[in-house]
Amino acid sequence: MTELIYEQPLNEKTRSYLRLEHLAEQLHDNLLHDQKHRCFYPLFSLCELTERCDYRGEILKDIDRQILSLTNTKQPHIDTQTTTQQINRLKEYRESLQSSERLGTHLKQNRFLSALRQRFSMPGASCNFDLPQLHFWLAKPLEQRQREFQQWISAFEAILNPIQLLLQITRETSSFRQETAHAGFFQGGSSEPLSLIRVKINANQGCYPTISGHRNRYAIHFVMFEQQRHSDNAISFELATCV
Amino acid sequence: MTELIYEQPLNEKTRSYLRLEHLAEQLHDNLLHDQKHRCFYPLFSLCELTERCDYRGEILKDIDRQILSLTNTKQPHIDTQTTTQQINRLKEYRESLQSSERLGTHLKQNRFLSALRQRFSMPGASCNFDLPQLHFWLAKPLEQRQREFQQWISAFEAILNPIQLLLQITRETSSFRQETAHAGFFQGGSSEPLSLIRVKINANQGCYPTISGHRNRYAIHFVMFEQQRHSDNAISFELATCV
Repeated sequence: MTELIYEQPLNEKTRSYLRLEHLAEQLHDNLLHDQKHRCFYPLFSLCELTERCDYRGEILKDIDRQILSLTNTKQPHIDTQTTTQQINRLKEYRESLQSSERLGTHLKQNRFLSALRQRFSMPGASCNFDLPQLHFWLAKPLEQRQREFQQWISAFEAILNPIQLLLQITRETSSFRQETAHAGFFQGGSSEPLSLIRVKINANQGCYPTISGHRNRYAIHFVMFEQQRHSDNAISFELATCV
Repeated sequence: MTELIYEQPLNEKTRSYLRLEHLAEQLHDNLLHDQKHRCFYPLFSLCELTERCDYRGEILKDIDRQILSLTNTKQPHIDTQTTTQQINRLKEYRESLQSSERLGTHLKQNRFLSALRQRFSMPGASCNFDLPQLHFWLAKPLEQRQREFQQWISAFEAILNPIQLLLQITRETSSFRQETAHAGFFQGGSSEPLSLIRVKINANQGCYPTISGHRNRYAIHFVMFEQQRHSDNAISFELATCV
């Protein structure tokens, strides 16, 4: 089996970013494979999250902070060309984010999507008789459905693109180092506030980490999947602590 | 584009059956294609529906009614061999349904599924950090995941198999006949109480039917998909009214 990476955000901002990145990956999946009616789950989740909270202001602040940090800090393990490219991409994203309207507004006016969304949270309610318009839409050729889907998600790209880059930059602030969790437990700390804990572990050890923490401290418990209980073994894993 | 069939139940029983059949098709889809975490949506929907309502009693009554009806009624357009096979299958299904325990009980005791189910209704909450156990499970080989999935859904087969056959028998009570909806509207009635209205229409007409009705009466409005409004045209379609 494979090496798996588990991530745990240590602040609210990174938590939101990871959730939105996860949805962005699912949306992208819909453009590669025909997920039929399932394509609407991540779309409606994204609508709901962006209605609850307008992420634009926070992302703009974060972009500015990262541009400043990338410009000032000379990071020896990152070459200058990559840094310059990242700064340029952040500036591009800032521009499109500044000119974007409140996200999801265009979808609210779409009667087809509104009707679907009302039903999608009900169990088994994407039936032929609940939503004949969905049955019609699903019979359209895949390319046409993908074109329409691309159009629906395009407005969200203004936040999803910078989030993906900002998370990449965060992940690059640390490299993996070898660690051991004695009796399935590991804890650590940092003088600098942390954003993200990353644990890499080979799945053939049969366990997964549950990670908790806040800013400067974190703890990792390893749980055996089949037994669904904490491991008492010495677990060897790789750890990265990102700021 | 394709010929599409739209169905509208005219009683509560058929409504439930169609909903469960729709979920059964999605579950089956998961055994053919790797739907990743999306495989859990129909599973949890099925859990929810069967917790709200124990369908077993109603299905048993319906099986007995159909066996009686198939045995007594000589239907000229169905050959005897098919009828005998259907009766035998109904008897088999009755037996397994009688010996089945309350559905979904075995899944409630599964801690992995319970943890997932709590999270799955929240937008974007199937993240790595929300559910590290899901991340672990998804890395298992496809065959192993399909084997486990098959095991989880197996208990539901006691209701899903007879429902699929009972719906097939209902659909076979009527054949499609050519009809025209003048100004996009059609209505009809029947002296015998109806279970199911079926409308077959070529998608290149650009419209879908919205069907309403109860027992002896039904009405069909055709809606143009792109304009999202009722059609004023004469719409040619095929209609089957099943008892």
